[in-house]
Amino acid sequence: MLEVEAKAHLEDPQRAVQRLLELGAREAYSTVQRDTYYRHPSRDFAETDEALRIREEEGRATLTYKGPKVDAETKSREELEVPVVDLRSLGALLLRLGFEPVAVVEKHRRGFRLGDLEVDLDEVKGLGTFLEVEAAAGEGLEEGRAKVLGLLRTLGLERLERRSYLELLLQRGSAPPSENK
Amino acid sequence: MLEVEAKAHLEDPQRAVQRLLELGAREAYSTVQRDTYYRHPSRDFAETDEALRIREEEGRATLTYKGPKVDAETKSREELEVPVVDLRSLGALLLRLGFEPVAVVEKHRRGFRLGDLEVDLDEVKGLGTFLEVEAAAGEGLEEGRAKVLGLLRTLGLERLERRSYLELLLQRGSAPPSENK
Repeated sequence: MLEVEAKAHLEDPQRAVQRLLELGAREAYSTVQRDTYYRHPSRDFAETDEALRIREEEGRATLTYKGPKVDAETKSREELEVPVVDLRSLGALLLRLGFEPVAVVEKHRRGFRLGDLEVDLDEVKGLGTFLEVEAAAGEGLEEGRAKVLGLLRTLGLERLERRSYLELLLQRGSAPPSENK
Repeated sequence: MLEVEAKAHLEDPQRAVQRLLELGAREAYSTVQRDTYYRHPSRDFAETDEALRIREEEGRATLTYKGPKVDAETKSREELEVPVVDLRSLGALLLRLGFEPVAVVEKHRRGFRLGDLEVDLDEVKGLGTFLEVEAAAGEGLEEGRAKVLGLLRTLGLERLERRSYLELLLQRGSAPPSENK
Protein backbone atom coordinates (compact mmCIF):
# COMPACT_ATOMS: atom_id res chain seq x y z
CA MET A 1 0.00 0.00 0.00
CA LEU A 2 1.20 3.50 -0.74
CA GLU A 3 0.98 5.81 2.25
CA VAL A 4 0.35 9.44 1.25
CA GLU A 5 1.02 11.69 4.22
CA ALA A 6 2.80 14.77 5.51
CA LYS A 7 3.51 16.19 8.91
CA ALA A 8 4.27 19.54 10.47
CA HIS A 9 5.66 20.90 13.72
CA LEU A 10 2.92 22.08 16.03
CA GLU A 11 3.54 25.02 18.37
CA ASP A 12 0.01 25.31 19.72
CA PRO A 13 -1.74 21.92 19.91
CA GLN A 14 -4.86 23.27 21.64
CA ARG A 15 -5.47 25.79 18.89
CA ALA A 16 -4.95 23.18 16.17
CA VAL A 17 -7.47 20.82 17.81
CA GLN A 18 -10.00 23.66 18.06
CA ARG A 19 -9.55 24.49 14.36
CA LEU A 20 -9.87 20.82 13.40
CA LEU A 21 -13.13 20.49 15.33
CA GLU A 22 -14.45 23.69 13.73
CA LEU A 23 -13.65 22.19 10.32
CA GLY A 24 -15.81 19.18 11.23
CA ALA A 25 -13.18 16.70 12.42
CA ARG A 26 -14.10 14.16 15.06
CA GLU A 27 -11.72 12.63 17.54
CA ALA A 28 -11.56 8.90 16.82
CA TYR A 29 -9.09 7.50 19.33
CA SER A 30 -6.27 8.16 21.75
CA THR A 31 -3.41 5.72 22.15
CA VAL A 32 0.18 5.18 23.22
CA GLN A 33 2.56 3.68 20.64
CA ARG A 34 5.99 2.27 21.35
CA ASP A 35 8.06 1.71 18.20
CA THR A 36 11.33 -0.19 18.21
CA TYR A 37 13.36 0.43 15.06
CA TYR A 38 15.86 -2.05 13.70
CA ARG A 39 19.03 -1.68 11.68
CA HIS A 40 19.54 -3.94 8.63
CA PRO A 41 22.54 -6.31 8.82
CA SER A 42 24.07 -5.11 5.55
CA ARG A 43 22.13 -2.10 4.31
CA ASP A 44 22.17 1.42 5.73
CA PHE A 45 18.47 2.20 6.13
CA ALA A 46 19.31 5.88 6.72
CA GLU A 47 20.86 5.93 3.26
CA THR A 48 18.27 3.79 1.46
CA ASP A 49 15.45 5.68 3.24
CA GLU A 50 13.79 2.50 4.48
CA ALA A 51 12.71 1.44 7.95
CA LEU A 52 11.82 -1.71 9.86
CA ARG A 53 10.05 -1.46 13.17
CA ILE A 54 7.92 -3.33 15.67
CA ARG A 55 5.05 -1.27 17.02
CA GLU A 56 3.50 -2.15 20.37
CA GLU A 57 0.10 -0.64 20.99
CA GLU A 58 -2.76 -1.62 23.27
CA GLY A 59 -1.31 -5.06 23.86
CA ARG A 60 -0.91 -5.80 20.13
CA ALA A 61 2.25 -5.78 18.04
CA THR A 62 2.91 -5.22 14.32
CA LEU A 63 6.03 -5.62 12.21
CA THR A 64 6.21 -2.85 9.61
CA TYR A 65 8.50 -2.24 6.64
CA LYS A 66 8.58 1.23 5.12
CA GLY A 67 10.05 1.76 1.66
CA PRO A 68 11.85 4.85 0.37
CA LYS A 69 9.79 8.05 0.15
CA VAL A 70 8.49 8.61 -3.37
CA ASP A 71 7.75 12.33 -3.28
CA ALA A 72 9.87 15.37 -2.38
CA GLU A 73 7.42 17.24 -0.18
CA THR A 74 5.29 14.65 1.60
CA LYS A 75 6.47 11.46 3.26
CA SER A 76 4.52 9.13 0.97
CA ARG A 77 6.03 5.63 0.78
CA GLU A 78 5.26 1.94 0.55
CA GLU A 79 4.26 0.34 3.82
CA LEU A 80 3.97 -3.40 4.54
CA GLU A 81 2.39 -4.50 7.82
CA VAL A 82 2.53 -7.93 9.39
CA PRO A 83 0.64 -8.67 12.63
CA VAL A 84 2.87 -10.25 15.27
CA VAL A 85 1.55 -12.98 17.52
CA ASP A 86 4.68 -13.73 19.51
CA LEU A 87 6.65 -10.54 20.07
CA ARG A 88 9.43 -12.16 22.07
CA SER A 89 10.18 -14.89 19.52
CA LEU A 90 10.15 -12.39 16.67
CA GLY A 91 12.57 -10.09 18.50
CA ALA A 92 14.92 -13.02 19.10
CA LEU A 93 14.61 -14.15 15.49
CA LEU A 94 15.40 -10.67 14.14
CA LEU A 95 18.50 -10.53 16.36
CA ARG A 96 19.71 -13.90 15.04
CA LEU A 97 19.32 -12.62 11.48
CA GLY A 98 21.50 -9.62 12.31
CA PHE A 99 18.76 -7.00 12.80
CA GLU A 100 19.53 -4.98 15.93
CA PRO A 101 17.31 -2.45 17.71
CA VAL A 102 18.63 1.02 17.04
CA ALA A 103 16.14 3.31 18.81
CA VAL A 104 12.73 3.43 20.50
CA VAL A 105 10.14 6.09 19.62
CA GLU A 106 7.34 6.53 22.14
CA LYS A 107 4.40 8.80 21.56
CA HIS A 108 0.92 9.64 22.71
CA ARG A 109 -1.29 9.89 19.62
CA ARG A 110 -4.74 11.44 19.33
CA GLY A 111 -6.40 10.38 16.09
CA PHE A 112 -8.94 12.54 14.26
CA ARG A 113 -11.02 11.99 11.11
CA LEU A 114 -11.81 14.82 8.75
CA GLY A 115 -13.67 13.68 5.63
CA ASP A 116 -11.42 10.99 4.18
CA LEU A 117 -8.31 12.34 5.87
CA GLU A 118 -6.70 10.87 8.96
CA VAL A 119 -5.19 13.48 11.23
CA ASP A 120 -2.88 12.48 14.08
CA LEU A 121 -1.72 14.74 16.85
CA ASP A 122 1.50 13.22 18.17
CA GLU A 123 3.22 14.11 21.40
CA VAL A 124 6.59 12.43 20.93
CA LYS A 125 8.80 11.79 23.93
CA GLY A 126 11.91 13.93 23.60
CA LEU A 127 10.81 15.66 20.36
CA GLY A 128 7.71 17.76 20.96
CA THR A 129 4.32 17.86 19.23
CA PHE A 130 3.46 17.24 15.58
CA LEU A 131 0.42 17.03 13.34
CA GLU A 132 0.42 14.26 10.75
CA VAL A 133 -2.14 14.12 7.93
CA GLU A 134 -2.73 11.00 5.84
CA ALA A 135 -4.86 10.57 2.73
CA ALA A 136 -7.33 7.68 2.43
CA ALA A 137 -5.88 4.34 1.34
CA GLY A 138 -6.38 3.87 -2.38
CA GLU A 139 -6.35 7.56 -3.12
CA GLY A 140 -3.92 8.53 -5.91
CA LEU A 141 -0.62 10.20 -5.04
CA GLU A 142 -1.44 13.56 -6.65
CA GLU A 143 -4.97 13.84 -5.31
CA GLY A 144 -3.99 12.69 -1.83
CA ARG A 145 -1.01 15.02 -1.80
CA ALA A 146 -3.19 18.04 -2.64
CA LYS A 147 -5.68 17.26 0.14
CA VAL A 148 -2.98 16.61 2.73
CA LEU A 149 -1.02 19.77 1.99
CA GLY A 150 -4.27 21.76 1.69
CA LEU A 151 -5.29 20.91 5.23
CA LEU A 152 -1.89 21.80 6.68
CA ARG A 153 -2.12 25.16 4.89
CA THR A 154 -5.64 25.76 6.21
CA LEU A 155 -4.39 25.13 9.74
CA GLY A 156 -1.57 27.61 9.21
CA LEU A 157 1.10 24.98 9.77
CA GLU A 158 4.11 25.86 7.70
CA ARG A 159 7.00 24.03 9.31
CA LEU A 160 6.67 20.80 7.33
CA GLU A 161 8.82 17.98 8.60
CA ARG A 162 9.77 15.27 6.14
CA ARG A 163 12.11 13.46 8.51
CA SER A 164 10.68 10.59 10.52
CA TYR A 165 10.56 10.70 14.32
CA LEU A 166 13.35 8.11 14.22
CA GLU A 167 15.53 10.36 12.07
CA LEU A 168 14.80 13.34 14.30
CA LEU A 169 15.72 11.35 17.39
CA LEU A 170 18.92 9.97 15.90
CA GLN A 171 19.89 13.45 14.72
CA ARG A 172 19.39 14.75 18.25
CA GLY A 173 21.97 12.11 19.10
CA SER A 174 19.91 10.28 21.68
CA ALA A 175 17.08 7.80 21.72
CA PRO A 176 14.47 8.43 24.41
CA PRO A 177 15.09 6.67 27.71
CA SER A 178 12.94 3.61 28.12
CA GLU A 179 12.57 3.77 31.91
CA ASN A 180 9.26 5.63 32.35
CA LYS A 181 7.23 4.14 29.52
CA MET B 1 14.84 -24.07 22.43
CA LEU B 2 17.50 -26.63 21.61
CA GLU B 3 16.32 -29.28 19.19
CA VAL B 4 18.05 -32.65 19.77
CA GLU B 5 17.43 -34.89 16.78
CA ALA B 6 18.95 -37.15 14.17
CA LYS B 7 17.77 -38.68 10.95
CA ALA B 8 18.59 -41.65 8.76
CA HIS B 9 17.88 -42.84 5.23
CA LEU B 10 15.09 -45.38 5.14
CA GLU B 11 15.13 -48.18 2.55
CA ASP B 12 12.10 -50.07 3.82
CA PRO B 13 9.49 -47.74 5.36
CA GLN B 14 6.90 -50.48 5.94
CA ARG B 15 9.33 -52.58 7.93
CA ALA B 16 10.39 -49.55 10.02
CA VAL B 17 6.77 -48.71 10.84
CA GLN B 18 6.11 -52.31 11.87
CA ARG B 19 9.16 -52.31 14.18
CA LEU B 20 8.12 -48.95 15.68
CA LEU B 21 4.63 -50.25 16.45
CA GLU B 22 6.11 -53.42 17.98
CA LEU B 23 8.27 -51.20 20.22
CA GLY B 24 5.09 -49.49 21.42
CA ALA B 25 5.00 -46.41 19.22
CA ARG B 26 1.64 -44.90 18.29
CA GLU B 27 0.93 -42.95 15.14
CA ALA B 28 0.03 -39.40 16.15
CA TYR B 29 -0.60 -37.57 12.89
CA SER B 30 -0.12 -37.42 9.16
CA THR B 31 0.47 -34.15 7.36
CA VAL B 32 1.85 -32.40 4.30
CA GLN B 33 4.45 -29.68 4.86
CA ARG B 34 5.61 -27.15 2.31
CA ASP B 35 8.77 -25.31 3.36
CA THR B 36 10.09 -22.28 1.51
CA TYR B 37 13.69 -21.53 2.41
CA TYR B 38 15.17 -18.05 2.17
CA ARG B 39 18.68 -16.77 1.53
CA HIS B 40 20.10 -14.06 3.82
CA PRO B 41 20.94 -10.75 2.10
CA SER B 42 24.55 -10.70 3.32
CA ARG B 43 25.32 -13.97 5.03
CA ASP B 44 25.84 -17.36 3.40
CA PHE B 45 23.51 -19.62 5.37
CA ALA B 46 25.15 -22.69 3.81
CA GLU B 47 28.42 -21.56 5.37
CA THR B 48 27.07 -20.38 8.72
CA ASP B 49 24.89 -23.50 8.96
CA GLU B 50 21.72 -21.50 9.63
CA ALA B 51 18.33 -21.53 7.94
CA LEU B 52 15.25 -19.36 7.60
CA ARG B 53 12.05 -20.83 6.29
CA ILE B 54 8.30 -20.40 6.12
CA ARG B 55 6.40 -23.64 6.69
CA GLU B 56 2.87 -24.00 5.35
CA GLU B 57 0.91 -26.82 6.90
CA GLU B 58 -2.81 -27.47 7.25
CA GLY B 59 -3.67 -23.87 6.41
CA ARG B 60 -1.28 -22.43 9.01
CA ALA B 61 2.13 -20.85 8.47
CA THR B 62 5.20 -20.48 10.69
CA LEU B 63 8.42 -18.53 10.27
CA THR B 64 11.35 -20.52 11.64
CA TYR B 65 14.99 -19.69 12.24
CA LYS B 66 17.44 -22.55 12.78
CA GLY B 67 20.85 -21.87 14.29
CA PRO B 68 24.10 -23.73 13.57
CA LYS B 69 24.24 -27.39 14.58
CA VAL B 70 25.93 -27.85 17.95
CA ASP B 71 26.89 -31.52 17.78
CA ALA B 72 28.89 -33.56 15.28
CA GLU B 73 26.62 -36.59 14.93
CA THR B 74 23.05 -35.40 15.44
CA LYS B 75 21.43 -32.30 13.95
CA SER B 76 20.75 -30.61 17.28
CA ARG B 77 20.44 -26.82 16.98
CA GLU B 78 18.59 -23.78 18.21
CA GLU B 79 15.17 -23.25 16.71
CA LEU B 80 13.01 -20.12 16.94
CA GLU B 81 9.41 -20.28 15.73
CA VAL B 82 7.09 -17.39 15.02
CA PRO B 83 3.46 -18.00 13.98
CA VAL B 84 2.54 -16.12 10.81
CA VAL B 85 -0.88 -14.54 10.46
CA ASP B 86 -0.49 -12.92 7.06
CA LEU B 87 1.71 -15.09 4.85
CA ARG B 88 1.54 -12.83 1.82
CA SER B 89 2.57 -9.67 3.66
CA LEU B 90 5.42 -11.48 5.37
CA GLY B 91 6.70 -12.87 2.06
CA ALA B 92 6.63 -9.38 0.55
CA LEU B 93 8.34 -7.91 3.61
CA LEU B 94 11.12 -10.53 3.53
CA LEU B 95 11.72 -9.76 -0.15
CA ARG B 96 12.02 -6.02 0.56
CA LEU B 97 14.61 -6.77 3.24
CA GLY B 98 16.66 -8.74 0.72
CA PHE B 99 15.64 -12.28 1.73
CA GLU B 100 14.88 -14.30 -1.40
CA PRO B 101 13.32 -17.75 -1.67
CA VAL B 102 16.01 -20.25 -2.59
CA ALA B 103 14.17 -23.61 -2.62
CA VAL B 104 10.95 -25.36 -1.66
CA VAL B 105 10.93 -28.64 0.27
CA GLU B 106 7.68 -30.59 0.17
CA LYS B 107 7.09 -33.71 2.19
CA HIS B 108 4.45 -36.04 3.50
CA ARG B 109 5.16 -36.66 7.17
CA ARG B 110 3.76 -39.38 9.42
CA GLY B 111 4.39 -38.55 13.07
CA PHE B 112 4.83 -41.24 15.75
CA ARG B 113 5.34 -41.07 19.51
CA LEU B 114 7.52 -43.56 21.33
CA GLY B 115 7.90 -42.77 25.02
CA ASP B 116 9.22 -39.23 25.06
CA LEU B 117 10.66 -39.48 21.55
CA GLU B 118 9.06 -37.99 18.46
CA VAL B 119 9.60 -40.10 15.36
CA ASP B 120 8.80 -38.73 11.91
CA LEU B 121 8.63 -40.75 8.74
CA ASP B 122 9.22 -38.31 5.89
CA GLU B 123 8.58 -38.94 2.23
CA VAL B 124 10.37 -36.01 0.63
CA LYS B 125 9.56 -35.02 -2.92
CA GLY B 126 12.62 -35.67 -5.06
CA LEU B 127 14.74 -37.14 -2.23
CA GLY B 128 13.20 -40.38 -0.96
CA THR B 129 12.20 -41.53 2.52
CA PHE B 130 13.80 -40.72 5.89
CA LEU B 131 13.23 -41.39 9.57
CA GLU B 132 13.82 -38.49 11.92
CA VAL B 133 13.97 -38.92 15.71
CA GLU B 134 13.71 -36.03 18.14
CA ALA B 135 14.20 -35.99 21.91
CA ALA B 136 11.65 -34.33 24.20
CA ALA B 137 11.96 -30.57 24.61
CA GLY B 138 13.87 -29.74 27.77
CA GLU B 139 15.87 -32.96 27.70
CA GLY B 140 19.63 -32.40 28.00
CA LEU B 141 21.84 -32.73 24.92
CA GLU B 142 23.73 -35.82 26.11
CA GLU B 143 20.70 -37.70 27.39
CA GLY B 144 18.60 -36.82 24.35
CA ARG B 145 21.42 -37.74 22.02
CA ALA B 146 21.79 -41.20 23.58
CA LYS B 147 18.06 -41.93 23.29
CA VAL B 148 17.82 -40.69 19.72
CA LEU B 149 20.83 -42.62 18.45
CA GLY B 150 19.77 -45.66 20.49
CA LEU B 151 16.44 -45.89 18.68
CA LEU B 152 18.02 -45.55 15.24
CA ARG B 153 20.40 -48.39 16.18
CA THR B 154 17.52 -50.54 17.42
CA LEU B 155 15.75 -50.05 14.10
CA GLY B 156 18.91 -51.08 12.25
CA LEU B 157 19.17 -47.72 10.50
CA GLU B 158 22.82 -46.99 9.92
CA ARG B 159 22.88 -44.44 7.11
CA LEU B 160 22.68 -41.33 9.31
CA GLU B 161 22.09 -38.10 7.40
CA ARG B 162 23.23 -34.91 9.04
CA ARG B 163 22.44 -32.72 6.04
CA SER B 164 19.06 -30.99 5.95
CA TYR B 165 16.54 -31.76 3.20
CA LEU B 166 17.34 -28.31 1.85
CA GLU B 167 21.06 -29.11 1.65
CA LEU B 168 20.32 -32.46 0.01
CA LEU B 169 18.07 -30.80 -2.57
CA LEU B 170 20.55 -28.03 -3.34
CA GLN B 171 23.35 -30.60 -3.65
CA ARG B 172 21.25 -32.54 -6.11
CA GLY B 173 21.27 -29.29 -8.03
CA SER B 174 17.52 -28.88 -8.28
CA ALA B 175 14.71 -27.76 -6.06
CA PRO B 176 11.53 -29.84 -6.41
CA PRO B 177 9.02 -28.60 -8.96
CA SER B 178 6.15 -26.76 -7.35
CA GLU B 179 3.50 -27.68 -9.91
CA ASN B 180 1.81 -30.72 -8.31
CA LYS B 181 1.83 -29.73 -4.66
